[in-house]
Amino acid sequence: MQVAYTPAEIAAIVGAPRTAGTTTDLIRDIASLTAARAGDLSFLGNAKYRAQVAASTATALLLPLDYTGEPQPGQVFLFVENPSVALAKVCARIEAALWPKPTPGVHRSVIVAPTARVDATAHVGPLCVVEDDAVVGPGSVLQASVFVGRGAQIGRDCFLMPGVVLGAGCSLANRVRLQPGVVIGSDGFGYEFVNGRHEKVPQIGVVIIGDDVEIGANSTLDRARFSRTVVGEGTKIDNLVQVAHNVVIGKHCILCAQVGISGSTTLEDYVILGGQAGVGGHITLGKGSKGGGGAGIASDVPAGAYVNGNPAIPYMLERRLAVLHQRLPDLFKRVEALEKK
Amino acid sequence: MQVAYTPAEIAAIVGAPRTAGTTTDLIRDIASLTAARAGDLSFLGNAKYRAQVAASTATALLLPLDYTGEPQPGQVFLFVENPSVALAKVCARIEAALWPKPTPGVHRSVIVAPTARVDATAHVGPLCVVEDDAVVGPGSVLQASVFVGRGAQIGRDCFLMPGVVLGAGCSLANRVRLQPGVVIGSDGFGYEFVNGRHEKVPQIGVVIIGDDVEIGANSTLDRARFSRTVVGEGTKIDNLVQVAHNVVIGKHCILCAQVGISGSTTLEDYVILGGQAGVGGHITLGKGSKGGGGAGIASDVPAGAYVNGNPAIPYMLERRLAVLHQRLPDLFKRVEALEKK
Amino acid sequence: MQVAYTPAEIAAIVGAPRTAGTTTDLIRDIASLTAARAGDLSFLGNAKYRAQVAASTATALLLPLDYTGEPQPGQVFLFVENPSVALAKVCARIEAALWPKPTPGVHRSVIVAPTARVDATAHVGPLCVVEDDAVVGPGSVLQASVFVGRGAQIGRDCFLMPGVVLGAGCSLANRVRLQPGVVIGSDGFGYEFVNGRHEKVPQIGVVIIGDDVEIGANSTLDRARFSRTVVGEGTKIDNLVQVAHNVVIGKHCILCAQVGISGSTTLEDYVILGGQAGVGGHITLGKGSKGGGGAGIASDVPAGAYVNGNPAIPYMLERRLAVLHQRLPDLFKRVEALEKK
Repeated sequence: MQVAYTPAEIAAIVGAPRTAGTTTDLIRDIASLTAARAGDLSFLGNAKYRAQVAASTATALLLPLDYTGEPQPGQVFLFVENPSVALAKVCARIEAALWPKPTPGVHRSVIVAPTARVDATAHVGPLCVVEDDAVVGPGSVLQASVFVGRGAQIGRDCFLMPGVVLGAGCSLANRVRLQPGVVIGSDGFGYEFVNGRHEKVPQIGVVIIGDDVEIGANSTLDRARFSRTVVGEGTKIDNLVQVAHNVVIGKHCILCAQVGISGSTTLEDYVILGGQAGVGGHITLGKGSKGGGGAGIASDVPAGAYVNGNPAIPYMLERRLAVLHQRLPDLFKRVEALEKK
Repeated sequence: MQVAYTPAEIAAIVGAPRTAGTTTDLIRDIASLTAARAGDLSFLGNAKYRAQVAASTATALLLPLDYTGEPQPGQVFLFVENPSVALAKVCARIEAALWPKPTPGVHRSVIVAPTARVDATAHVGPLCVVEDDAVVGPGSVLQASVFVGRGAQIGRDCFLMPGVVLGAGCSLANRVRLQPGVVIGSDGFGYEFVNGRHEKVPQIGVVIIGDDVEIGANSTLDRARFSRTVVGEGTKIDNLVQVAHNVVIGKHCILCAQVGISGSTTLEDYVILGGQAGVGGHITLGKGSKGGGGAGIASDVPAGAYVNGNPAIPYMLERRLAVLHQRLPDLFKRVEALEKK
Repeated sequence: MQVAYTPAEIAAIVGAPRTAGTTTDLIRDIASLTAARAGDLSFLGNAKYRAQVAASTATALLLPLDYTGEPQPGQVFLFVENPSVALAKVCARIEAALWPKPTPGVHRSVIVAPTARVDATAHVGPLCVVEDDAVVGPGSVLQASVFVGRGAQIGRDCFLMPGVVLGAGCSLANRVRLQPGVVIGSDGFGYEFVNGRHEKVPQIGVVIIGDDVEIGANSTLDRARFSRTVVGEGTKIDNLVQVAHNVVIGKHCILCAQVGISGSTTLEDYVILGGQAGVGGHITLGKGSKGGGGAGIASDVPAGAYVNGNPAIPYMLERRLAVLHQRLPDLFKRVEALEKK
């Protein structure tokens, strides 16, 4: 971060009713209580870390109103209702300073097809390609080297980072945020085995991304065989996640890094999948269900259920079996002892 | 999809000997019997779904010749020998309409080295880079932002999507299809541990891709330490797959998404690996062998064998052990009961 | 490889004190004893393969001084102190021939912000983007289509391959090597669940990469929520690896392909993780600890320990349990027999 605030500026940002101490240092970074050094802002976000405040060498600390200690020389305490909320305000301010919204316009190096429509309030950065009949909506930003295929549609206030590929006919609703290298609309993986060879099944569908979806770096979402691969409103997808053709993901789901979802599977709303979980094809994960990290889910999961392990089974059972599994050496000995009786 | 066909046009495409019903709607999409709405084409691909036809609200339906029901008002039935084959004909027609073959030529924004040879019938789209001595063969398409390194060779009728990187000296045979973000020819991961540091072992080999290979989005294939990393004719690789240095993959294999193959391992012809399977280094998977999704394969697999689990063992054994594993709580109780006798 | 050496040139490169045999063939490639064909150089790197030398059809062979056989007609033996070391010398020579250091300068197609500072000895290849206040240090190479965000810093003699994205404010020290498609500085994956929606937590930290780090193709490293995500000096990361926000990786670690590290976890120096291993959040892997391929590590690992399996447990225990697991059918039978007594 290339920022510098005085403690007084921080106090103004968070609306601190009271402060203690003085310093001539500027705040240039944020860190936890134990990691903070001179020039850092820190905060007491959880009462259990209260004892760490006295030893913290942060230049400024966001503390709850009822905190009773005294700042060290050259240190400032900023007392606030809720230190976590106050920190979020500081972060948002820094974010706006670090990444000001790019000005509208199309960079001179961009290759835009004559039939593409780019809204006058959109920003299309260097070396992007926007193909025939594609649409870039109001306030949307294509940072650099983004590819928008034929007839693809980008709604309002989307943000596409460098190297994103949005395939022909695919669409983003509004406020969609795509990290670098995301691929939307690669071919689905479908073949028929004919005379000893895998013959390609045409993949002519599209991918439809809902409002407020975010997708992590280098994740891949395949176009449907026909019809649509869907990601519902508010769903957040982490890095290196694979979503196969004709998958339908509901609203407000969370897919952690390196998850893989096989073809034609449905995730209902509010599903959560831990990192590296794998989900088989043509199944349904019910509303609000959860899969643990690394889980291998091969069959339907009821709404609200939590499964774990590979093959995935109900979480509590999996935990119990994991414990018993570690007691196998003992069990073998006990059976041997019984046999010798 | 941005298509519109009359049912009569569909009937002509599939060569339907008989139709029933009339409609003024155009066909704009394809969907399953239950998902189809007005404007959709659907089909009865499997006899077990026969009962769904009567309730389907598709505008047009591909049905077998012996189907006996009547269309609803505004709905058209198209009777054909084989509805699945007929659907494939429609898909192929839509595919050709959606993605017409780009015209030959090199976009003005492309950076081509003077010593590179691009065939006059090839298409090199915007913002590609083609380095010294590289070759792009007849009819091949580089869609946009593709990088072709020094001396790399691309055969006839290949298709490289945006953001593909083909490293120096690597080669594609004919009709190879690379999805966006594929990396071919990254350095192999090889180091020697010397005096507390990992010293790089030079990786000077290449990657050789055979005829009709397809590779999915953001998959990575490393160049050999020396000699060749090989992918055989007709093999299909899904998204986010890792192929390490000196791996040799035979013909007509299937590698599902997020598979990882460690260095110097050989896959003989017709091997199939499920999603997220991991294969250790310096081993051989025999002809036609299979690994289940998420399998962890650490040793040779005989030809034709099917392994599963982590560590991978024969499939039937793995299934049986999974069942017994879930009966562990019962087994512990039974042993306890015996001990109390 | 597009190289051609006479055996005499190879002898000079490796400083062979003695040779035997003659040939008119040129050396164009390197291969193992059994795979080598005419035109290949091979070597006896391990005494256990000594019997393979006589049958090898390599044109030239690097052999230890005490090897006693005779070359075939048209074959050359090159006797050296250490064939592996000799081979490394040949590889290094080929590497330098294949990939000569690019000449300094900024390609005419590059988009460089006026406030960016590119050292006069750096090479910035075609279609790169270097944003405001970014720094590219002496001798560093950006091959092509590399994105360097606002205020990002690249030290001395780094090498960034095509399609790399270095996010705003992130930094590389010296001699860092990034394979194609690496993303550094994507947003961390952090949300708070408020009123049924996942609200984004600002991710305003950076990523700091130490000296001599190498990162594999399409790997992703997220910026910190605040403060720093860190990769220590000399650490080597393979392809498709995910490093979440606020992870701190020590010096000289090895992360094999498709590893995933969850947020705020610490890897101390010399940690080694096998392919597809997954590490949970907010834990510490002690100095020199190891995780096996596919391991699922959910809690702290002591320094020097070796864990395996999912959930990961000490390696020797995991191996023993795997053996007992396969004996479950027998155990069930034995318990049944006891019950019938």
